[in-house]
Amino acid sequence: MSLGQIAAHIDGKADGDPSLVICGVASFDEASSDELTFASGAKFLNRLHSSPAGAVVAPLNAPAGAKPLIRVENPALAFARAAWLFVEKPPVTGIAKSAVIADDFVCGKDPSIGPGVVIGKGVKAGDCIRIGPNTVIGDNVRLGDGVCLNANVTIYHGCILGSRVIVHSGTVIGADGFGYASDGLTLFKIPQTGIVQIGDDVEIGANNTIDRATFGKTLVGSGVKTDNLVHIAHNVIVGENAVLIAQAGVSGSTKIGRNAVLGGQAGIAGHLEIGDFAFVGPQSGIAKDVEAGAVVSGSPAMPHRLWLKVSRIISNLPQLRQQIGQMSKRLDALEEKADANNM
Amino acid sequence: MSLGQIAAHIDGKADGDPSLVICGVASFDEASSDELTFASGAKFLNRLHSSPAGAVVAPLNAPAGAKPLIRVENPALAFARAAWLFVEKPPVTGIAKSAVIADDFVCGKDPSIGPGVVIGKGVKAGDCIRIGPNTVIGDNVRLGDGVCLNANVTIYHGCILGSRVIVHSGTVIGADGFGYASDGLTLFKIPQTGIVQIGDDVEIGANNTIDRATFGKTLVGSGVKTDNLVHIAHNVIVGENAVLIAQAGVSGSTKIGRNAVLGGQAGIAGHLEIGDFAFVGPQSGIAKDVEAGAVVSGSPAMPHRLWLKVSRIISNLPQLRQQIGQMSKRLDALEEKADANNM
Amino acid sequence: MSLGQIAAHIDGKADGDPSLVICGVASFDEASSDELTFASGAKFLNRLHSSPAGAVVAPLNAPAGAKPLIRVENPALAFARAAWLFVEKPPVTGIAKSAVIADDFVCGKDPSIGPGVVIGKGVKAGDCIRIGPNTVIGDNVRLGDGVCLNANVTIYHGCILGSRVIVHSGTVIGADGFGYASDGLTLFKIPQTGIVQIGDDVEIGANNTIDRATFGKTLVGSGVKTDNLVHIAHNVIVGENAVLIAQAGVSGSTKIGRNAVLGGQAGIAGHLEIGDFAFVGPQSGIAKDVEAGAVVSGSPAMPHRLWLKVSRIISNLPQLRQQIGQMSKRLDALEEKADANNM
Repeated sequence: MSLGQIAAHIDGKADGDPSLVICGVASFDEASSDELTFASGAKFLNRLHSSPAGAVVAPLNAPAGAKPLIRVENPALAFARAAWLFVEKPPVTGIAKSAVIADDFVCGKDPSIGPGVVIGKGVKAGDCIRIGPNTVIGDNVRLGDGVCLNANVTIYHGCILGSRVIVHSGTVIGADGFGYASDGLTLFKIPQTGIVQIGDDVEIGANNTIDRATFGKTLVGSGVKTDNLVHIAHNVIVGENAVLIAQAGVSGSTKIGRNAVLGGQAGIAGHLEIGDFAFVGPQSGIAKDVEAGAVVSGSPAMPHRLWLKVSRIISNLPQLRQQIGQMSKRLDALEEKADANNM
Repeated sequence: MSLGQIAAHIDGKADGDPSLVICGVASFDEASSDELTFASGAKFLNRLHSSPAGAVVAPLNAPAGAKPLIRVENPALAFARAAWLFVEKPPVTGIAKSAVIADDFVCGKDPSIGPGVVIGKGVKAGDCIRIGPNTVIGDNVRLGDGVCLNANVTIYHGCILGSRVIVHSGTVIGADGFGYASDGLTLFKIPQTGIVQIGDDVEIGANNTIDRATFGKTLVGSGVKTDNLVHIAHNVIVGENAVLIAQAGVSGSTKIGRNAVLGGQAGIAGHLEIGDFAFVGPQSGIAKDVEAGAVVSGSPAMPHRLWLKVSRIISNLPQLRQQIGQMSKRLDALEEKADANNM
Repeated sequence: MSLGQIAAHIDGKADGDPSLVICGVASFDEASSDELTFASGAKFLNRLHSSPAGAVVAPLNAPAGAKPLIRVENPALAFARAAWLFVEKPPVTGIAKSAVIADDFVCGKDPSIGPGVVIGKGVKAGDCIRIGPNTVIGDNVRLGDGVCLNANVTIYHGCILGSRVIVHSGTVIGADGFGYASDGLTLFKIPQTGIVQIGDDVEIGANNTIDRATFGKTLVGSGVKTDNLVHIAHNVIVGENAVLIAQAGVSGSTKIGRNAVLGGQAGIAGHLEIGDFAFVGPQSGIAKDVEAGAVVSGSPAMPHRLWLKVSRIISNLPQLRQQIGQMSKRLDALEEKADANNM
């Protein structure tokens, strides 16, 4: 593709020979002379000449002259769009012979269903779905257009996935919520009769677990992205465009606001509300509600700025304790003097 | 079913028209007028009239008049039992054609074995087992009556599961323990020749890992329940009815007492003993033994009441440091005065 | 096997009847009289007579007389080597009929490929590979000699595994890295066009996730061992012989030095460098580089010795605060006296 064609595709302005041929995309320091890269921060913009790339997606105000550029408002986003131009679209493979699919399966056009896939009764799917080998889809599941389930995914019965949902391997959607009634000594299983419902344009990482609701629905809003090994318990509601980083866990019935971010290994207790656009730092432990837009860290969590102060003091606690000990001795001395004066 | 029939089934007393027809169960605020719900705390008992439910499972002393009630001693437990009345029993499906099962498989009556299931040599199973699609069972595994393995579960060779054990998808039972001998630079694998043995009425969540013993057995006692993404290392012993919440991890050779509870993301070091009925808070880090009945929190863990105090002080450390700074200045001033007086 | 034969195999010296017959290996306290065990620390060497074992692998300077011994320099390592003598080599099973393998599969001698395995196009494998049931191998994957993938493993397209790599069940290698470009509200997926490359003699535990690189490679060096539920993000480099304990997580583009150890549930932020031979304690949170050979703990992490001090002070914070309160009162009293004196 030519620089000009790419620039047109990503709504940018070519600054350089528009007929320059670009064969792929790569990172700033590892691109070849026929590849495109991108630069956004000053760190990269100040050394545009040092990238071996043939051309660079750069901000509108990037310095000219060092390299052929495509100027755009949001270089990272524009570059991501450009990158897709060089990704080969996987072919439509139809339905593998060894897939075991119930007779009443309703499926849109152009499915790609791999070997060993098992699809239960009453399943309905949209157009252009891609199901990787050995993935298992339970009875009465609904899959929107363009859903992509990679290999070895499990979707329990009754769950609903919107359009263009991507699920990575090993992920389990719709297993029973962790719900028991106790007689004081033993636990009696509460039937988990709800489902998981996932919106559109959601991507779920590898080896996630998203449990079905006890009653009703566990909800994952449109645009949500989860990293690997994330746990979402029964009856949780994850707001639109929220981001859950690797190994984060959300306990039952908690509500995560839209565009909220949970850092890696963060843990959220049950029945809480994390506000819209809130940011929960990595490894944080959240035991009470978090306000919309708040940035919190630590376990137990506190405002992030406070946490930064606190964590510096924590590593200075030995000195602080020493200081207290010295002050105590100074007090002893002063009290002795005072007593002597009084006598 | 009628209110009277349900009351009889759950050993309760109908307070209202026993012929009232109930078609299902649901949560307090979302039930319909032909559904049953339950109420236990004052929070719900004080607003019985506000539930749209047709009838309510309630404590013996619940206020009369607002709704048809079923009075019981333990409403949560009784409701869970009632809920099962409305869960359709899955049909017995026999053995799927595409399952690959060794010739010497010994199996009780009424198995349901899904497509793509692989069962190794020398496996013995009880009555009424249910094996989900694409689950893999290694050589010489033993499965008790009524065992339910969901789709995409892996049981390594030689492991033993008791009766009515439920295992959710993606869980791996019996992978090699993490055991190596070091020459100082590289690690040499120690063969892991033990097994995992699981008691009766255990439920294991999705994407758990329970490792086989180096020698002997990793033991999971009867009645244990684990949430999702839980890790149990080689040679661990989990006592009866213990509860392991999501993402908890237990290191090698540790013993968890019966009815102990490990909170979400809690981590237990190796070769420890967690006492019976102990409670380990979420995200706790346990580096030494925990006494029976103790409630501990924090990382490193301490008694929970102490942790509550400590964690409040932690977020006040900046003020505490300021106070110490001011006290130091006050000391300076007093010492100066004292010196002046002495002169 | 005879004691003498075993001694010869593990480069040790039999101290006792070399014709003694040994039928297996077991732990110190549970071995039978025809089994071999080992003892390294004083704790076991002082009670050699109390082990029911028939013979003991022991250090060169172990006390004589209590038991037949095999004296070696490194008893744990020598014992591990001896243990393998009693592990039956699994038979070569060939390729299962129900495996679905692309026509162009290139494979060395003596493969064992289980039922339900799916192998994509362009895959090349060395000699003596073992692939467990229902494992899925994407297009263009490379597997070295002696690779062992257990059941239900997923290897995405293009990934490269060296010789003798062992992967446990449920593990996902090569899923997309967690990379998105934001327009401020929604996230746009960046294509993840890199791969995962794994060296020789690596063992990956169960339910791990190792993501492919955005561009280039996520690298796992030779000799690395990972426990269960470990997360390794895109573009991470794990140095040779590093050890990642259960539930540890490493964020994108971080470099783990060779022979480094990450404790259980430790979390490492992105774009960091953990030095060679560094040791990161369990549950630690690493937000900046760690020097080679450093031992760090805590979240945020600090030198381990400091962390030991700090964590003792943390649980004494209530007393410390009380002491500060008392000192403040003593200051009040002194200031009052001083004021009275001045008047």
